[in-house]
Amino acid sequence: MSEQPKLASLDDSIVGRLPSHAQSLFAAKTEKKLTFADLAERLGRSEVAVAAIFYGQATASPEDVKVLAEVLGLDETTLRAQVGGVFPDRGRAGPMPPVEPLIYRLYEIVQNYGYAYKAVINEKFGDGIMSAIAFSTTVDKEVDNDGVAWVNIKLRGKWLPFTRF
Amino acid sequence: MSEQPKLASLDDSIVGRLPSHAQSLFAAKTEKKLTFADLAERLGRSEVAVAAIFYGQATASPEDVKVLAEVLGLDETTLRAQVGGVFPDRGRAGPMPPVEPLIYRLYEIVQNYGYAYKAVINEKFGDGIMSAIAFSTTVDKEVDNDGVAWVNIKLRGKWLPFTRF
Amino acid sequence: MSEQPKLASLDDSIVGRLPSHAQSLFAAKTEKKLTFADLAERLGRSEVAVAAIFYGQATASPEDVKVLAEVLGLDETTLRAQVGGVFPDRGRAGPMPPVEPLIYRLYEIVQNYGYAYKAVINEKFGDGIMSAIAFSTTVDKEVDNDGVAWVNIKLRGKWLPFTRF
Amino acid sequence: MSEQPKLASLDDSIVGRLPSHAQSLFAAKTEKKLTFADLAERLGRSEVAVAAIFYGQATASPEDVKVLAEVLGLDETTLRAQVGGVFPDRGRAGPMPPVEPLIYRLYEIVQNYGYAYKAVINEKFGDGIMSAIAFSTTVDKEVDNDGVAWVNIKLRGKWLPFTRF
Amino acid sequence: MSEQPKLASLDDSIVGRLPSHAQSLFAAKTEKKLTFADLAERLGRSEVAVAAIFYGQATASPEDVKVLAEVLGLDETTLRAQVGGVFPDRGRAGPMPPVEPLIYRLYEIVQNYGYAYKAVINEKFGDGIMSAIAFSTTVDKEVDNDGVAWVNIKLRGKWLPFTRF
Amino acid sequence: MSEQPKLASLDDSIVGRLPSHAQSLFAAKTEKKLTFADLAERLGRSEVAVAAIFYGQATASPEDVKVLAEVLGLDETTLRAQVGGVFPDRGRAGPMPPVEPLIYRLYEIVQNYGYAYKAVINEKFGDGIMSAIAFSTTVDKEVDNDGVAWVNIKLRGKWLPFTRF
Amino acid sequence: MSEQPKLASLDDSIVGRLPSHAQSLFAAKTEKKLTFADLAERLGRSEVAVAAIFYGQATASPEDVKVLAEVLGLDETTLRAQVGGVFPDRGRAGPMPPVEPLIYRLYEIVQNYGYAYKAVINEKFGDGIMSAIAFSTTVDKEVDNDGVAWVNIKLRGKWLPFTRF
Amino acid sequence: MSEQPKLASLDDSIVGRLPSHAQSLFAAKTEKKLTFADLAERLGRSEVAVAAIFYGQATASPEDVKVLAEVLGLDETTLRAQVGGVFPDRGRAGPMPPVEPLIYRLYEIVQNYGYAYKAVINEKFGDGIMSAIAFSTTVDKEVDNDGVAWVNIKLRGKWLPFTRF
Amino acid sequence: MSEQPKLASLDDSIVGRLPSHAQSLFAAKTEKKLTFADLAERLGRSEVAVAAIFYGQATASPEDVKVLAEVLGLDETTLRAQVGGVFPDRGRAGPMPPVEPLIYRLYEIVQNYGYAYKAVINEKFGDGIMSAIAFSTTVDKEVDNDGVAWVNIKLRGKWLPFTRF
Amino acid sequence: MSEQPKLASLDDSIVGRLPSHAQSLFAAKTEKKLTFADLAERLGRSEVAVAAIFYGQATASPEDVKVLAEVLGLDETTLRAQVGGVFPDRGRAGPMPPVEPLIYRLYEIVQNYGYAYKAVINEKFGDGIMSAIAFSTTVDKEVDNDGVAWVNIKLRGKWLPFTRF
Repeated sequence: MSEQPKLASLDDSIVGRLPSHAQSLFAAKTEKKLTFADLAERLGRSEVAVAAIFYGQATASPEDVKVLAEVLGLDETTLRAQVGGVFPDRGRAGPMPPVEPLIYRLYEIVQNYGYAYKAVINEKFGDGIMSAIAFSTTVDKEVDNDGVAWVNIKLRGKWLPFTRF
Repeated sequence: MSEQPKLASLDDSIVGRLPSHAQSLFAAKTEKKLTFADLAERLGRSEVAVAAIFYGQATASPEDVKVLAEVLGLDETTLRAQVGGVFPDRGRAGPMPPVEPLIYRLYEIVQNYGYAYKAVINEKFGDGIMSAIAFSTTVDKEVDNDGVAWVNIKLRGKWLPFTRF
Repeated sequence: MSEQPKLASLDDSIVGRLPSHAQSLFAAKTEKKLTFADLAERLGRSEVAVAAIFYGQATASPEDVKVLAEVLGLDETTLRAQVGGVFPDRGRAGPMPPVEPLIYRLYEIVQNYGYAYKAVINEKFGDGIMSAIAFSTTVDKEVDNDGVAWVNIKLRGKWLPFTRF
Repeated sequence: MSEQPKLASLDDSIVGRLPSHAQSLFAAKTEKKLTFADLAERLGRSEVAVAAIFYGQATASPEDVKVLAEVLGLDETTLRAQVGGVFPDRGRAGPMPPVEPLIYRLYEIVQNYGYAYKAVINEKFGDGIMSAIAFSTTVDKEVDNDGVAWVNIKLRGKWLPFTRF
Repeated sequence: MSEQPKLASLDDSIVGRLPSHAQSLFAAKTEKKLTFADLAERLGRSEVAVAAIFYGQATASPEDVKVLAEVLGLDETTLRAQVGGVFPDRGRAGPMPPVEPLIYRLYEIVQNYGYAYKAVINEKFGDGIMSAIAFSTTVDKEVDNDGVAWVNIKLRGKWLPFTRF
Repeated sequence: MSEQPKLASLDDSIVGRLPSHAQSLFAAKTEKKLTFADLAERLGRSEVAVAAIFYGQATASPEDVKVLAEVLGLDETTLRAQVGGVFPDRGRAGPMPPVEPLIYRLYEIVQNYGYAYKAVINEKFGDGIMSAIAFSTTVDKEVDNDGVAWVNIKLRGKWLPFTRF
Repeated sequence: MSEQPKLASLDDSIVGRLPSHAQSLFAAKTEKKLTFADLAERLGRSEVAVAAIFYGQATASPEDVKVLAEVLGLDETTLRAQVGGVFPDRGRAGPMPPVEPLIYRLYEIVQNYGYAYKAVINEKFGDGIMSAIAFSTTVDKEVDNDGVAWVNIKLRGKWLPFTRF
Repeated sequence: MSEQPKLASLDDSIVGRLPSHAQSLFAAKTEKKLTFADLAERLGRSEVAVAAIFYGQATASPEDVKVLAEVLGLDETTLRAQVGGVFPDRGRAGPMPPVEPLIYRLYEIVQNYGYAYKAVINEKFGDGIMSAIAFSTTVDKEVDNDGVAWVNIKLRGKWLPFTRF
Repeated sequence: MSEQPKLASLDDSIVGRLPSHAQSLFAAKTEKKLTFADLAERLGRSEVAVAAIFYGQATASPEDVKVLAEVLGLDETTLRAQVGGVFPDRGRAGPMPPVEPLIYRLYEIVQNYGYAYKAVINEKFGDGIMSAIAFSTTVDKEVDNDGVAWVNIKLRGKWLPFTRF
Repeated sequence: MSEQPKLASLDDSIVGRLPSHAQSLFAAKTEKKLTFADLAERLGRSEVAVAAIFYGQATASPEDVKVLAEVLGLDETTLRAQVGGVFPDRGRAGPMPPVEPLIYRLYEIVQNYGYAYKAVINEKFGDGIMSAIAFSTTVDKEVDNDGVAWVNIKLRGKWLPFTRF
């Protein structure tokens, strides 16, 4: 694959599963040649959160909308209606089990280590769950001494103990 | 829920899906009142990896077997045959989609943010995947200033670009 | 159906999906002719929570174990090992979609009114979820003026807003 | 997320699963900046019932149609044809198991506590079901002394005993 | 619900699963304000059979087409091409398991009593099946002395014994 | 197939899905050479209801238990514990979609005519469902003038209108 | 593969899905070194029908039982109870879609040519089905002039036209 | 059902699953009032093969295209591009399990007799499969002495033994 | 089937699952009468890789885009935007299990020999996987001495051992 | 992972899906410390074929049985009955989609490149399939100049053109 920078864009065969703003946001991002890292810096948010807004999996605050409209050259009123006034209908971006190899690997981690996570977390925290709502996540690139690249994903979720009732 | 320490044990309704060593390892761990953190320290491995050995999702080296046998009071020869001489048949510990709430939350993260991860990772690394094989993971407990507990999960996987052919 | 009091017991064809303590608890309850209401009163917990302990869907505190052992005439040490030292492996009691008519009706409520609940809750609370973990529930019987019985189920869950990140 | 009031609107990727009136009703509601609480007050119905009408999961009486047309500024004749003359084709608004986190939590309650509800209800009422048809439901917001918000959902269904035949 | 007569119409979200004549037939029926009972009387057929023609689940004879065209004010030639010259592609009107509550109840009867029907029918008739092809069915309304309405569905199918070969 | 009378018995490969009383009841029925018609006459119930008791899909009253024990030569106390003190866990006797040809034909009727039934019933009764709980059913054998046998199944369920709320 | 004659036997991993007589019949057949062709000749039935009796998919007449017991050296009374007094619970011998390559090929024929069969049969016979109950089938071996073997399967089913009602 | 000849046509709700030539071929066939038998005679092929071409499940040779264009009054060049230059994407004409009753009966034959076919074929031919590729099939109508119609389907496939390697 | 050369083209019923460039690439290839072998030679890549680009399963380098545009007579800028600036959304070209007979045979190889591959690879390489990302594949045609054609597929993937952590 | 040689053995949680000879063969192989390469050399067969015999996916000739019995120290008569007299019931060794990471990667290759293989094979061979029956496969280890290991899998299958009929 080419070494030159590439921008994530929207595969048009996935469009039907996403809210309509996904198309206009991705088109503007492609035209402006902006990465999610560029946008994340402007919005003061995580890159994953910004990409999640594009895919209709996260909400944008009024300030986010303002900045996004400005940076992407979109009409702020329209954008506000699209992503600022909507409660996302999450979870429908792709099929489960995932068929995209990159996403499948994340799924496989849950499949293989799910019970191991549960056992370790239960011992450390008790009976409960790590929230996926009161939650944040980041992706970082690491290059080791041999020049090998590694992906570092951090998941941070609030601990929610099961209520006694 | 009670504040006193608890040990993760094996729900007997899950036994049929696991290799037979899962039962003997968990039974010994319960009897010795050892946590996965205790075992991880003795083995010099991640707690998740140790739990994964118990669930038949990871391999134990000869040294691991030796230490485990010693710490858990199990016969080393038997244990070596069970976990030292086996290539794990991974992925069958639980149903997918997960029904256990703790594991479901991890699945939900993949479901909601899968495409966002893909977009961000593609922009940072190019076309490829984060390996789930050349991979490690840890779980940490964080207590913030308000005394609220947070779960921190780190995933670190080698970057594998798609080969041109 | 007979008007005389009946006790919920364990259908033996469901046993394989449940932890082994389910059988001994139900057997003792049947022998002692105790309802979940009787047990709930003794434990100071909701009837649903007590039944959930029986089905391996909730944890029992050390005090719960003590009282249960006493009331049901079970050995406390054994019971403590079974339900006091276990992190439940939830969600596997029955198939989904449910095939039991009573449980199916609850499922149907989610199927029919799921989006209506989401719309109303989003408007009242914003973007987030009602927790099913920091959660309690009760069942009450109401008989109206015409002598018609009504089931009242209350669900109370903590509001968890999606974190901005 | 922003603290300012938001209105639930219709994610356009869900449109294909809903009757066509869903789009016109939601569009009018958005334009009039009305919440389901506003509409419920005008119609003298539960907010959930009103939202259910929007999603094609409940019927509107001729009076409901009249009021809705008036409040939303829609043509009454058209609206009558759309929602007043239709027997809803229920149950198709979203996938099951739900992928939307808010709806999934309700599903999870059924998955985890289904058999517990059945046991408790059977003991209180006998052999039968709680109707999901002769049924009503409400959503209430509670803020506790610590300022924490809680969602209260009430389900009330007629008791239907299995007929002896 | 309103007491005034209503006509079954076609939920437009189901249209994609039905042959195109479903839309024109339902539209004409709505305009003419005719019930299936009205049409059944004119065609000399069961109401269920007439509704099944509308949903593409049954065939119309040339005489049926003639009468339908006349009664519904449709062009006979067009209608003949649509429903008179077609072998229906049955079974695709709705999802299975059904999500519509009314249809689900019929499904539930099969789910709960399927083996009971088989046992009773085998004892009465031997080894074979009740045909669903050489088959007729009716729906009747009964109001008992207390003014309670009951639905009576009759299924009548030819007995087909398994051939010895 | 042989013309001589046969008795429905229990296929032993289905046993794991049924409550344990299914085996003892069927064994006794086989030994006593009794048909469900014989038992139904003795119990004053429908044959389908009696068969449903055998398959764990319906409850037996104390009187039913007494008669069944007497007729089948079973110990009344044991039988009472098995079928008199149990709330059936319905819906698990066979897979859905059914694979047994006789049961599949009933399923196919729902699949093909489900929407037709809904349309006709909605027009006759309004918006609601036919209950499968306040419900009875019978099977009758008819032999027409040509000596051809026909199966007649009658379903009678209480009409439940959707509640306005 | 070896050219010497082989006998179809029962894969023991399939046993749980079959009635218990499958094991004893196959064991006796293996011991007696009899093919299904041998048995078919003795019973005056098709080989497929005989194999279907072994797999619990067809019934044996009293005469069949007598001959089978004699030929296979089994106790007639026991065998009569097992296969002579049972209404088969068909359709559960293997998973669908089939995973066995030989059976999959038959499934693939239905998958690829199903609509072609329907079109041709509709034109030849009208609107109806070919019965799979009033049905027989045979398998023949053909060796062409080049010494190539061909499998010939014949399916013969009664034509059942859809009833007008 | 009417006794007058009918032509199989294309249910427009199935169109999305078929290649685009299906529509033009069926339309022309309907206009020319030709049966598959008529076309088969002209092409010198089996009726099933001709119908399979229409449904995109078989290929047409250049000669087939020429004759089809002529007989159906279609432009040969266009038709050649559509069906003469295409490798069919088979297997997607209908859902599996089939919901169309006629096709379901064929599926049921595989479901019920699959293992019986395998046993008989293994004994006659050894370890291998009947090819569904080097394969032909025909449908014939038989009317017996009582005037009863029977469908005769013949499947003929090359025997393919498993290779030793 | 005709012996004259044919070109793989795009079945229009599969279009909805593929990125939009699939249509323009296939159309140009058809017009230019080019095989994948022709294109592979021009691009210096494997035929499978080139076909995978067409189906949106692989990326094209800037040089690939240039050559493809030239050879296929497409606008380079447009093509670059379509296939040069996109990270493929892989895995959605067809259903799994595959219904296309050719693809099903590959799936069947995995189904039948999957565990055999695992056992042999584990013994040769240890605990790990063959990468499907750092991977290449070729298809070759072999004609043996009897004039019989054989397909040779080679899969070459990097060995990835499970990391110890 | 340890560098010392390991032997593939049988995960006891998979035993229920395999024929009973799988256990005795694997146990003997483990005791004799033999690899599949050792056995393949003795039998003159591919390692994959030998492993497939162990998993019940391939047949053993009488000579194979003789050698296997000798090498593994098993009773030849017993072994002959187990693997020499059985037509394998293939395809049930593991779930599909595979959950084992190694097997999943093979599945993913089919998922991603299935249509690319089809297009290339169709162009090289015409309309047909690569047989998975008249088929052989090998696994080889390659170590490149950088000391990196690669897995080479070869699939060789007979070309089967679709028959014209």
